[in-house]
Parts: sequence; structure tokens; C-alpha cells
Amino acid sequence: MIFFSSDYSQGAHPEVLAALARTNLEHTDGYGLDPHCENAADTVRSLIGDDTASVHFMVGGTPCNVTFAAAVLKPFQSVIAAHTGHIYFHETGALEGTGHRIVTVEAPEGKLTPELIELALEEYQDEHTPKPGLVYISQPTELGTLYKKAELEAISRKCREHGLIFYIDGARLGAALTCRENDASIRDIAALCDAFYIGGTKNGALFGEALVIKNTIDDGSFRHMIKRQCGLLAKGRLLGVQFEALLDGGEESLLYRIGRHENEMAELLREGLEKLGVGFIGNSRTNQLFPILPAEAVRELKRDFFFYEWRREKDGMIPIRLVTSWGTQRSDVEEFLLRLGELLRACPEA
Amino acid sequence: MIFFSSDYSQGAHPEVLAALARTNLEHTDGYGLDPHCENAADTVRSLIGDDTASVHFMVGGTPCNVTFAAAVLKPFQSVIAAHTGHIYFHETGALEGTGHRIVTVEAPEGKLTPELIELALEEYQDEHTPKPGLVYISQPTELGTLYKKAELEAISRKCREHGLIFYIDGARLGAALTCRENDASIRDIAALCDAFYIGGTKNGALFGEALVIKNTIDDGSFRHMIKRQCGLLAKGRLLGVQFEALLDGGEESLLYRIGRHENEMAELLREGLEKLGVGFIGNSRTNQLFPILPAEAVRELKRDFFFYEWRREKDGMIPIRLVTSWGTQRSDVEEFLLRLGELLRACPEA
Amino acid sequence: MIFFSSDYSQGAHPEVLAALARTNLEHTDGYGLDPHCENAADTVRSLIGDDTASVHFMVGGTPCNVTFAAAVLKPFQSVIAAHTGHIYFHETGALEGTGHRIVTVEAPEGKLTPELIELALEEYQDEHTPKPGLVYISQPTELGTLYKKAELEAISRKCREHGLIFYIDGARLGAALTCRENDASIRDIAALCDAFYIGGTKNGALFGEALVIKNTIDDGSFRHMIKRQCGLLAKGRLLGVQFEALLDGGEESLLYRIGRHENEMAELLREGLEKLGVGFIGNSRTNQLFPILPAEAVRELKRDFFFYEWRREKDGMIPIRLVTSWGTQRSDVEEFLLRLGELLRACPEA
Amino acid sequence: MIFFSSDYSQGAHPEVLAALARTNLEHTDGYGLDPHCENAADTVRSLIGDDTASVHFMVGGTPCNVTFAAAVLKPFQSVIAAHTGHIYFHETGALEGTGHRIVTVEAPEGKLTPELIELALEEYQDEHTPKPGLVYISQPTELGTLYKKAELEAISRKCREHGLIFYIDGARLGAALTCRENDASIRDIAALCDAFYIGGTKNGALFGEALVIKNTIDDGSFRHMIKRQCGLLAKGRLLGVQFEALLDGGEESLLYRIGRHENEMAELLREGLEKLGVGFIGNSRTNQLFPILPAEAVRELKRDFFFYEWRREKDGMIPIRLVTSWGTQRSDVEEFLLRLGELLRACPEA
Repeated sequence: MIFFSSDYSQGAHPEVLAALARTNLEHTDGYGLDPHCENAADTVRSLIGDDTASVHFMVGGTPCNVTFAAAVLKPFQSVIAAHTGHIYFHETGALEGTGHRIVTVEAPEGKLTPELIELALEEYQDEHTPKPGLVYISQPTELGTLYKKAELEAISRKCREHGLIFYIDGARLGAALTCRENDASIRDIAALCDAFYIGGTKNGALFGEALVIKNTIDDGSFRHMIKRQCGLLAKGRLLGVQFEALLDGGEESLLYRIGRHENEMAELLREGLEKLGVGFIGNSRTNQLFPILPAEAVRELKRDFFFYEWRREKDGMIPIRLVTSWGTQRSDVEEFLLRLGELLRACPEA
Repeated sequence: MIFFSSDYSQGAHPEVLAALARTNLEHTDGYGLDPHCENAADTVRSLIGDDTASVHFMVGGTPCNVTFAAAVLKPFQSVIAAHTGHIYFHETGALEGTGHRIVTVEAPEGKLTPELIELALEEYQDEHTPKPGLVYISQPTELGTLYKKAELEAISRKCREHGLIFYIDGARLGAALTCRENDASIRDIAALCDAFYIGGTKNGALFGEALVIKNTIDDGSFRHMIKRQCGLLAKGRLLGVQFEALLDGGEESLLYRIGRHENEMAELLREGLEKLGVGFIGNSRTNQLFPILPAEAVRELKRDFFFYEWRREKDGMIPIRLVTSWGTQRSDVEEFLLRLGELLRACPEA
Repeated sequence: MIFFSSDYSQGAHPEVLAALARTNLEHTDGYGLDPHCENAADTVRSLIGDDTASVHFMVGGTPCNVTFAAAVLKPFQSVIAAHTGHIYFHETGALEGTGHRIVTVEAPEGKLTPELIELALEEYQDEHTPKPGLVYISQPTELGTLYKKAELEAISRKCREHGLIFYIDGARLGAALTCRENDASIRDIAALCDAFYIGGTKNGALFGEALVIKNTIDDGSFRHMIKRQCGLLAKGRLLGVQFEALLDGGEESLLYRIGRHENEMAELLREGLEKLGVGFIGNSRTNQLFPILPAEAVRELKRDFFFYEWRREKDGMIPIRLVTSWGTQRSDVEEFLLRLGELLRACPEA
Repeated sequence: MIFFSSDYSQGAHPEVLAALARTNLEHTDGYGLDPHCENAADTVRSLIGDDTASVHFMVGGTPCNVTFAAAVLKPFQSVIAAHTGHIYFHETGALEGTGHRIVTVEAPEGKLTPELIELALEEYQDEHTPKPGLVYISQPTELGTLYKKAELEAISRKCREHGLIFYIDGARLGAALTCRENDASIRDIAALCDAFYIGGTKNGALFGEALVIKNTIDDGSFRHMIKRQCGLLAKGRLLGVQFEALLDGGEESLLYRIGRHENEMAELLREGLEKLGVGFIGNSRTNQLFPILPAEAVRELKRDFFFYEWRREKDGMIPIRLVTSWGTQRSDVEEFLLRLGELLRACPEA
């Protein structure tokens, strides 16, 4: 069985696991108050060129999104997000669980724009509505698409104009930063938003995300908030150790190398699919692809390949999601394309 | 530097780490829907002799406590706990964060009794008070003491009499189960309460706890609740793999072996301290000890040993906490006692 | 100045005020534990033909909606409502404030259907989404439209099929029950849903709503919930006294008489507007009308009449909202139509 | 039956009711945006000598306490209160319902002190505890006792020193301000705390409290918060009208006149009880008294008088609570004392 199901179906990248093994017998203080976390936080600050930012290591993406938003919003404030945003469609109402509405807009290619934000604001001016206080986007988006630097700048300006906090979910930030079409560096990201996180779970770690908060936002009490939201890991140094392994080396670090590999495998896959005449949902250039395949081919492929159907069958076609990861082999892609080619030739009418 | 600071200051027990390394390249489904979690859950059910219980693997103890209580309480219900209970004094109000009061009582040796529960109930009969709905205890307690089986039975009866859910925090359950004075087996625990967890973080895992819920309580929706509380780990199989490593082998499993080792080291330490004429807070028989030492000796010991002061200095004496773990060596204990002996002889008046 | 701004712009109907004055010096127990509340609750039970229902008197509609939903939903459950539903667009996120998402659907004429509910359910099957647990509708809707009995039956069946709680917001129920086109009696309403409220605030009371909960849903703890949500009125008997005044006399009671008057005034207004060639948003048959008028006429009318603009000016036209109430005089309507007629004749091109 | 059960067992003082009747047919905007609320708010500002304070009229005391605290606290912050504080023992966990712990201290006579606040702070320094953010007291306390001006100043200083918000629950503020032993004027109160409310419900209104917030605390968004907490009254002007009736006239206003009457009646009662040799819980000088009577006398008194038992019978004695109100007659007091005298003479051994 070959896996294109997700970028978190295996354990950690061997270099990450080695770092955990190497430091396993060290004794350190708990809850992230250890030299590895301190060192990894310094590396993050150096990478983004902001030595005043605070860096908190969290176990997962949902805890990052929810803990941060719940910390900075007033009780009656809401979050603006794309309808496809992870915080809305894949977190079981965790943000609402902290008392806040998510105001969603239909965003083409999963991307918010200043105009869409403006639309949401107009509907929420009355004191009988929960006033928007934060804008949530993902880079890359949940559909694999990318915000260009100019688009991020425009959103950032719109947020500042309206006193909205600008937050970027970077669950797959490694894939975004290393995408050939990307023009927004991690320094740009850090400069344009108020907070974002660098995803580890989907970029080779066992688990873990590095949440970066501008010092204008973090008043020093965020650790209280993490614990109050049940998110403070006892052996917190595990997060520091993994981010040391991921981030050391700047653009040649493991995070970047994994991102480049994922994108390269995805590109190979996309080009092969295009050659086979396959259409896609959206225009992803990162490590998630959404090809639309004949239902019969999908059913056959499932014998040898593991992936998720993205939407229901319609007119005999099923959109599926293919994800490449640090563990994806070139041969995996080739086998998939070969098998699909055979299947498509066998049912040419599709 | 020798560490008696906590049972989570190192990484994982080597056997746990080996299991993680061995399974690292496997592909599995995420979020705990994998064969390792399934297998580990079966092992738990077999260990407790209840094949209908549901088992959920969580990242930490605070998430277990809070997610379970928030799932089963009605919005206006409260939790009864000892003032020293972890859920009250060490979780930054995480349970209150879900909308529930913790009603605390002063509990000698950190142990609730039916009489103390009754006292709390009497004060909370009016509809202008948040009605107690759950009783929280820890086995062993946060002071290292143990509930005897008869004491657990009495609390269980009191809970059933009043329709209270009975929950046991087993962060250090391994140490309790293997304590020489313990007479409550894990089957007794499981039979007497409605839910409890088997702690991994403080018993040799990198992280992770196995939350066990009686089938009379879990209506099948608890996974929604875990995700809503931000507690669903993407690479959930890491929890399953670790609990396979910890639980395989029944009373000869790693969990029990670690527990026995911790208790043995603690006993050695306690006997040595007693020989030196040292007094203690409480009567712990598990892997946490609370000796009361001369302030000067404490300051000297800190040069070579790492531990926490438990309370403030008073009359020249400081109570400290010493914790043994899977990594504690017999020589660590001997060095500590030797050094303390020298210090006490040097300041005999203390 | 003549008012068509709302049905809560004056104090109470004189009969309600007289009842409050008449009982003012009585001493009673507080918090709704008094003979007036008991008596009014009996009257409600008799009116709906269900002597087992529990009846709770609340201060306002938002407290009814939010307290009930928060009481019956599990933490990870959500509410399905029309995008125009009061609970969504006019309560400042109060329901989300208790931790629950509102899943909205675009509902023509503000009315949910089984098909729209089905659509929402389909999108919320995954355990990473907040599972719908309650369906919220308003009778009449926020756009003045009515559900026919057959439509309510169809929603009721759909709810039972999926284990959804069915709740009806009756802020203006008096207007619905007495509308000429209505075929759903209060007994039908009570039989088809799990809980609903009879609005007092918008039907002649100073304030107050009678929340009716089927005995299959209320486990006797709802008063705890009201207090926990800050909704228990100290002088609770004020609510009982007002509902005695409103409900005594069945279909000849003040509630019904006010409803009939409101509808009669609205009908007069609607027929006059139609004669003037005015178009409407929606097809309201109750006491709220949404005529679309030339912007210039709107501005002129505001000199003598008080009402709200419903949406922004578009193509020179502004939709406004006109509401009739127990205090609306026939002469108020006539003056409005007369003045509007003059204005429309003066700007015939509009 | 003569009532000493509470100061909210009757309707409104006749002057308040008259004001409601007089203004009943006026049309105004809803939700407190009306001339009466504006005028009453101006009167409050003038009374306290702070023309920048914001004034919000709320329906009850619990909504004031909870809405304010929930608005100003960060999610992980807690409230310090006396164990007898209304917010703790009589609001069904409403504050915890918004996610915050109440840290209680045993306060002699129901009064907090800087020393008790300090004690609470010491226990809550660790980031694993919910950091105190607000100090809650009641003037007069729930036991009828009063803070002297110097005591309020000391608490105020302690709060400022530690960055704690200082909030005063004035449910019975009228009784405090007019108590012979009081030396803290309403201007002192307003100057020393960050927010407080002037109780109407227990001082002659049908319902309603005037919440006063210093402009350093209210950022203009508090009305959003009121609505989000379900506390915005549709016919908000009812609150304005009542507070106009209560507050017009400064120290000769109805609020002060009612307070003086309540205290005078309570003094008469207290002196009579003392003459009969009756002992008390606490040293109340306002309109609540807590005499300790023989159980037999209590049972007999209940035939003609309505009051609450405050604690359980112990050694044949029962502490009861007697409350005087605007409606208490001198003859009510005399009859009570006469009857009690007879009963005590009949059972002299008690």
C-alpha cells in the first residue's frame, strides 16, 4: 500500500527522531522552561528577524489557533475566516467552545481578500452582532493555494485599518515557503501579521508547532493561557528538541528541505496527472492536490493506494485529495501515475 | 547534578522510545484511528477486566481531567475535590474555563472521604448554588498518599447514593498499583469509579494518558469532545504505540516495573531520611516524599541536587519535594543521603 | 411623531400595567416561586393541552433562546438556524458565548425546511465538525412570514428522525396565532416541538416570555440553569402577574386580542401600500412589513414617522421596516398612507 | 402574615410605580437608548461627581457582577471574594460559567481586608494557578456589615498596588449610604473603586441596578458585552424611568429615603431584640439582622411572620434572617417583638 492520505501518517523524519533519542536521558525543567525550547525560540526569532517576538511551542495546530484567538479576543468578538478555513471546518467548534463566533465568507480558492473582509465587517457593525476582532488565514490554504506577498500586504493593511488582529495558520508553512511560486518569505510573514505558527506536525515532527506572537500583542501572560487551555506539555522540551532539529540551518534547515521535497513530489504528480488529462479542484502549487477522477478508477486505485475522497461522487467523477510528505518516494508517484494511466485507458469515456 | 525534581524531567523510558523508533515509518490513519491505539485499548480493557469500557488516549493529565468533566457535567454543575487536588491547584483554572466551579474541601493527607463529600453537598443544596455533579480524587494523591480499597469503596457508594460521577486521576497510578501497602488493584479501581486514567507521562512515556470511561457514561460522542477541547493528536498512534510498550505483560509490564522501581527508590530514600531523624509532611508511601530540612542544608544540597521547595521557609526549616522516577539510580539516593548526613551533622541544632 | 419602529417602543398594555399595580403590595416569595407564576404556568399548560410541560418565565427572548439551547446541547453540539434567525443575527453571539456554533443556511422567506436541515446535516457528519443538536426556527419569522402547520410537521419529523431538538422562538407568537392565514394552533406548536416560548415583550408586556419545555426534555434542573445564566428575576412574580393578564381567557385573552389588533393594523397598512403600488421584501402576513420606498420619500416620511431602514439604499430605493403594535391606532396608519401617497405623487418616476 | 423575608418580596415603591405608569404610553427607542436612561445616567454621574463615568442599567445584581467581571478579566484570571460574597454563594456558579474561578477567603463579618487579599495573592503566583484579576466586595456585606471609608481606602490601595480591578456590589447600597455608622459617601465609593452598582431591586424598584464603570475601564464596548450576556432589556427605558424616580433629589431622593426607613426599622428591631436578650450572628447595622432564637420560638413565630432560617438548628437554637424594606411598618416590628417576648417568657430556659 502506498500512502497519499496525509502528511501526518508516518512518525517523525529520521533526523527529528534522532534528536529526540540523543537528548532522551537529559534532565530538564518541565513545561517548556528548558534550554532546548529557549534555543529553538532564539532560532525562530533569528529566522524571522524579530528578536522581540515571543515564541511558544504547542502540541498541535488547533491548540495554536484556539488558544491564541481566545487570548486576544474580547468575549463578544468574532473571527473572520474563509468557509474552508481549518478553524471553521475541521476543529469541531473548538473556537466557539471558547465563546466566539467564526464569521465565514465564501472565498475563491480558499483565499480571503480585503474585499471579503470588508463585506463581513459591513454585516457586523450593529451592537447586536459579535464584532469581528481577528482575521484568520492559512498559508498555504487548506486547498493548497498560496497568498502572494502583495495579497498578504493588502490583508495586513485592511486589518490595521480596522483594528483587526491578523493571524496566519502555518500548519504547512514549510511547503509554502519552499514553493517555486512563493514570493513571501518567513520574514515577510512575520512582519505582516500579528501572530502565526510554523507547523511541525505536517512537516516532519512527531508533533508540535512554533507559535510566534508579536511583542505588541503578547503581554507576558500567554503561558497562563496555554495552561488554562490544557495545552502545556509536561515534557515541553520535546517540542524544543524537535524544532532545533527542524529549524537549524536557515533556508537549508530540515523544515525547508522537507518542504522542497514535498513540493517536488507534488509537482511530479501534478504534471503526470495533467499529462493524463486529469482536471483539478483549485490550483494548488503545494503538497496537496485535488484531482477529479472517474469513480471507477478511484475504486480501483484504492486497492494499492491510500488516499481520501474529498467530495461525493457526482456525474461519475470523484474529487480526491493526494498529499505528499517527507516520506513520499519518487517511485510512489510513478507507480500511482502508471496505474492511473492504465485505468484511464481502460475507461476512456470518463 | 542529580535530579529528584519530578518524574517527567527526562524523555521516555528506553523501551518506550524503542517502540516509537521501531514503528516510526509505518503509515497509519491519524487521530487515534490506528491499529496501535486499537490494540492498546484492548490491552487496557483486558487489564481492567471490562471489555465494554471505552479507552481514549490523551496527551496529558490536565486534558483528561478537564475534557472528561466538561463532557459529563451539566453547565450548572460543579466538581468536588480536595483543596490539594491537581485539578484545583495546578491547572490554571482550566476546569473553570469550561464553566464549572470546583468545590474544595480541606482533606487530611490530600484524601477525600464520604464525610467530606457530604459536607460539600450540604452547602450546595440550594438552587442558587452550582450543584455538585462529579467527585475528583487522585490515586496516589498529590501528597503521595494512597486510598485503601475500603476507602475507595466508601467514596464509590457515596457517589452512587447521590448520583455523583466518580473520577480518579491516575497520573501516577503505576506507583500506586505497585506500592507495597496498596490493596486496590486496577480492576478494583475500574470497578469502583466511572472513569479514570492510567498516567503515562509520569510513568516512562514521552507523554500520554489512557483515559478509561465506563460504557454507562460514554455515549460514543467523546471523540467529538476531545477535538472540541483541542486534544486530538494528529499522529495519534504515538499514544497507542507508547501504551503498547507500557502495558504489555500485565503485572510484569513496563508500567508496573517502573512503578516498582520508583517506589523502591523512594523507600530507600525515606528509610535513609528517617534514620537521619528527618520529619515529613504527610505519610507518603509512593514516589513523592516531602521531608522537612534545615534551610541551610537545603541551600547546600542545591549545589549538587535538583529538587523543588514545597513550602516557604518557616522557623529555619523548609519542606522540599523529592520525586523518584524510572531513571533514578540507587547511587543517586545514596549520594543524596550521604551528603545530607554530612550537612545535618554540621548543623546539629536544626 | 407616529411610531412604526417596533412592538416594544411603549410600556405595557394598560391591562398588564393595571395587574402589576393591583398586585404591587402583595408579599410573595422571590425568584418565580410565587402563586402568580404558578397560576400563569397552569394557564399555559391548559392553553397548550399538556399538563406535564414545564413552564419558566424569563425576562426576554435572548435569555430564552440561549438558556434553553445551552441547557440541552452537549458541549460539542451546534444549532441549525436560518441566516436571518434572531439567534444568529441579533444576539451578539450570545449562543456562541455558551460554547456552541450556529450553523446557518440561506432560507427563502426566513423559513427553514427539512431539505435545508438535511443539507446542514450532510456538511456536519465528520467528528471534526460540531454536530448539530438543535433546530431553531421563529414563528412568525423575523421577516413576518408564517410556517404552515404542514411545514412545522415536516420539520418536526425531520428533527425526530435525526435526534435533533426542535425549538420555536415565539417572540411574536401572538401575531402568528391570530393571523388570518395561520393554521397552526398553540396546541399544534406545543405538540410538534420540544420547547418554545410565548412572547410577552412584543405582545403587550413590560417584559417577559413564557418558555415551555416538554417534560421529556426538562429533568427538573432548569431553574439552576436560569440562575447560572443570570436570568432569574428576584421579583419573579412580576412575570407571573403579567402572563396572568395576558393569557387569561384562552383565544379571547389579551395576548390574542393584541395579536389580532396588530395584524389588523398591518393588513390595513399593507393594503394601502399595495394600492399605492409599493413593492415589498418578502410576503409577511403578520405585524412586520418591509416595503421598498423611494429614498426621497423615506427621508420625508421621517419628519413625522419613526421607523427603521432595513437595508441600505440601492438604485434610489430603501427597504424599510414598519411594525404595528398594541398601541397602533387606525389613524396612525391612515396618516402614514396619506402622507406617503402625497410623496409618491410628487416623485412619480420612482 | 407579616414579612421580614427579604427586601424584594413586594412590587415597587409607589413612587416608582407611578413613574412607570406616567411614562407608559411614551414611545422611545429600545435597549436603553432613550431619554430616560440618558437622564438617569446623568443624574448618577452628578451624584458621584464624575462626569466621565459610564453608566449602564441592568436588570439585576447577578447580571451586573458577572457581565462586568467577564468583560474585564482575561480568560485565565480569577476573582477574589469573601466566602460569603453573593457572587460566590448565591449565583449558581454564574461567574464560573463565564470561565473564571472565584478564589474565596474566610472573611470575618463578611469583610475582605488587604491582608486577606494578600494571602490569596500569595497562593496564586504560580503560572499553574488562575491569576487574580479582580477584587469583589459588597457594601453593605451579605451579613449586613459595613466597610468604613478607611477600610475601603486600604483595599483600594492594595488593588492598585497589584493591578487588581476593584468592584463593589451595591445591591443594598441605599441602606449602606444612609446607615448612621457609615462614613463612606457615594462619591467616596465611586472614587475608590473601578466599578460598582447602585441597587434598585432591593431598594424599591421593580427591578434594576445602575452599574457605574470608570472611564479608565470602559472602552466603549460594554453594551456589546451586555447583549452577549443576554442582559440587554428590550424596553430598556423602564430602567431609566425607575432610576429617575429613585435618584432625583440627591440625599433626599427616594433611594436615600428608602434606605433611611429600612435602617430605622432594623434599628427598632435590633434594639427590641437586644432588650429581649437575643444574641446575633455578626454585627449588622443595616437592614438585615441575624438573631439566634430558640428553635421552639422560631416555629411558633412562623405562624404569623414570614422569614428565613439562616442556618440549621444547633443546640436548640436557630439563627434566622430578618430583613426590613421600604414596605416594613413600625407596627410590623412591634408585633414581632411583642410575640417573641411572649414566646421567650414561655420558654425562659432557652
